Parts: sequence; structure tokens; C-alpha cells
Amino acid sequence: MNPPAVAVVEPKTPGNVGTIARAMKNFGMHDLKLVDPPALPRESEAYGFAGQAREDVLPNYDEVTFDELIANYHTVGLTATTNEDARKHRRFPFKTPEELADSLREVETDAVLIFGREDNGLTNDEIARVDEVCSIPASAEYSSLNLGQAATVTLYELRDLTVEETQLPDVERERADESEIEGFYDHFAEFLEAIGHPEEKRAKTLRLVRRLLGRAHPTGREVRTLRGVLRRAMYHAEDDEN
Amino acid sequence: MNPPAVAVVEPKTPGNVGTIARAMKNFGMHDLKLVDPPALPRESEAYGFAGQAREDVLPNYDEVTFDELIANYHTVGLTATTNEDARKHRRFPFKTPEELADSLREVETDAVLIFGREDNGLTNDEIARVDEVCSIPASAEYSSLNLGQAATVTLYELRDLTVEETQLPDVERERADESEIEGFYDHFAEFLEAIGHPEEKRAKTLRLVRRLLGRAHPTGREVRTLRGVLRRAMYHAEDDEN
Repeated sequence: MNPPAVAVVEPKTPGNVGTIARAMKNFGMHDLKLVDPPALPRESEAYGFAGQAREDVLPNYDEVTFDELIANYHTVGLTATTNEDARKHRRFPFKTPEELADSLREVETDAVLIFGREDNGLTNDEIARVDEVCSIPASAEYSSLNLGQAATVTLYELRDLTVEETQLPDVERERADESEIEGFYDHFAEFLEAIGHPEEKRAKTLRLVRRLLGRAHPTGREVRTLRGVLRRAMYHAEDDEN
Repeated sequence: MNPPAVAVVEPKTPGNVGTIARAMKNFGMHDLKLVDPPALPRESEAYGFAGQAREDVLPNYDEVTFDELIANYHTVGLTATTNEDARKHRRFPFKTPEELADSLREVETDAVLIFGREDNGLTNDEIARVDEVCSIPASAEYSSLNLGQAATVTLYELRDLTVEETQLPDVERERADESEIEGFYDHFAEFLEAIGHPEEKRAKTLRLVRRLLGRAHPTGREVRTLRGVLRRAMYHAEDDEN
């Protein structure tokens, strides 16, 4: 699918628009739509908060109407407040951002995520017109996220659909081979013997080390470093015996 | 486990401290630690950005040193910049926030998530001293999140460990029973017959409707509403025959 567009209805605070533009660039989205935005001059907080999105996402925003969004997109309305159950269906059912990512993955569609006003979100009438409702799970004690934070979390959850390449290297590739790790355990057994660890405790100690390292998924470098340490310790242990 | 504490090292902007405090309250965390913070008077943006966290998380913050964090907690350092591979191990290996949530779930420990400065994060020396490194996957083109946004995403990912009850109702419970859904398909078959849908096409049309509704996981209310519509349509169809 194309990365979804991101729309904000009547944002009041330029800083929030900048924050959302930055999150869009961080998570591979670029098409920003604003319904009745405030003035967004270069010297406003919109540009101050946008980071590198000040160069593209933010200045290239489109001003649109809510009607145009409904007419031209598969619309997803974001809200902190859902209905309790299926007796009222304006804000029910809804998806979490995680579920939204799963469902958008499966379809070819031009989607737009629609975020509402800072103070009271999308109106009931607006929510009634969108195709899907999405809500971020948060503490029942205080579930209302700031507009910029809600957008950041939602765009983050869609990253698998929108970001072609992250900045992170492929860690999986860097895990030590199983044979390297097994080699370490053999080495550690020799080490226990060399340092005179009581024979009856060796199997138990080895198992403990196996569990510990097993959970940590060591890299090849880590395993080689540990073996270097063992070698050095064994050299001294053997040295002491002479 | 206890909800992790959240620490920020030398934040410069009071607004970011407020944003982080708000995200903490949204996602069930309360223990805020600040290393060398700016002044945070009630009239600062810290309180302006904190939402309801202005009542508890923010005013109750502890001022601490980096050394105290290292001495007293299982420390997780957040950074946008990791090393490329295992040849350098100061920032490698690392976990994503999702992997961090999985691993913290399994242990009983007092953990602290440590966020760095707005402009250049945690120093190499600080990163070298933490127990684990965590990094948010973002676009390779622009991977540096704003401090408040990075904290929001990280705390959001830990919500399953920290939030006892979200504001969202249990949608699963609200899905229609399989028997209600099957009842609808039977009803729809009768409907096709009643409206004179060509006999050779009925099975195919039914299957299409089954696939469509199957993907949507309808609620009981939705199924009952659709059946009401079918009943009314069939009434008219039968009426026409007379």
C-alpha cells in the first residue's frame, strides 16, 4: 500500500502540527493534510518542532476540507473515547493502532488517518462519517493523550507498512552461531576443571551458565571475548599448578 | 514487576519534561527521576504540557545523579544511534522497545528507562555504563525522534506491563457469536431466493458475503441490524409477488 496520508482537523497550536510532521518523517509518511489550520509561518513553533520535516513534509501540506477527506480516502478517525459496547456504534467497534496496521497491510487503498482538535478531538458527527475508528489503549485513569503524542504513537505503529529501511542494523544476523555458543560451553567445562571447581558441582554450574547465556542470545563477538577471558584464566590456573 | 522508573539526563526544555510526565501517566508509570533538570516552576511549560500529570507525576519528581541510577537500578539507556554490528559493543546489541517489553515481563527487577539530552542524547560514556541499550526503529532517512516523542513511544510499548486497566472495552467479548453469524448467512440465502437472485449465482454470492463479513468480525448488534434489513427487504419482495 501507499503510506497513509495524515490529516489534522482544526489544529490550534502550530507546535502540534510541527510535532506531527516530524513523526511523519520519522516513520516514513509524507502527505500532510490540514483542515482549517492556523497560520504556519516559518518562524512559528510548527517549524521549530518539525526537525528535518521542516524541509519537506511541513511546507508541502495541503489544506483540505473534511468532506474532501471522506470523498477521496479510506478514512480512519482517531479518538481516545470509544463507546462501551456494540449498543452504540458510532465509536464502536474500533481498532487499536496495532490492529489497524495489521488490517491496512492486507489492502490496497489510499487511507488517511484523521486526528481531531487539541481540546476535544473529532466531533460525534465527524466520527459517524469515517470508515473506521482507531483508539490508543492507555491508562483508564488518564487515557487522553496530547494530540502530538497520539499521532506519534499511531504513526510509530504503522512503521512496518511505511518505513522501507530503518536506521537499525539487522541484529538477528549478528547473533553468534549455535556452534560458537556450544564451543563456549565446552570451553567453560574445561575452565571449571582447570580452576578446580568441585567435580560434583560442575554439571549444575554449567547448566546455570547455559541458561544465563541462552537468555541473552550472545553475539559472536561476545562469545569470542568470553572465550578469550577463559583462556587467560586457564593459563593462570595451569601456571599455578606448576 | 513494578512499573519502571523514567529518568531524563540534563533536559533543557521544561516542555519536554511535561510531555514525558504526561506520557508516564497515560501509560501507567509514576516515578520520574531528573538528572540536573532546569527550573520547573508551576508557570513553566513543564506544567503546561503535563496534562493531569501536573497533579502527581511532575511535582513528585526526584532529582538524582547518573551514578545513583547506575547503582540502584537495572538501567536501560535509550538511543537513536546504535553501532552497526558486534565489532563495537558500546551501543550493541540493543533491543527495540517491543523486545524490551518482552524481556522486562520475565523479570522481577527495579528498572529505569534513561533518556538523554534533547540535542545529543546520552554520551558514549553514559551508554557504556547502562545494563541494556534500547533503540526505536525509525526511518533510515530521519531516525532521530524528538525527546518527548521518543519517550512517548517507549512508554506506550511498555503499557502491557504497567497499565492495569485501559479505557478501552473488551472488543473480543462484543463479537457476535459464531451461531449468530451463521444465522445471518442462512438468512441471506433465503433473501437471495426471495429477491430472485439467479440460482446459478447464489452460492458464489453467498461465499463472497461470507468472506466479506468474515474479515470484518461483526458485532452482535451489527448482525442483528443486517438481519432486520434483510427481513424488511424480503417482506417487500414477497409483497411484490402477490
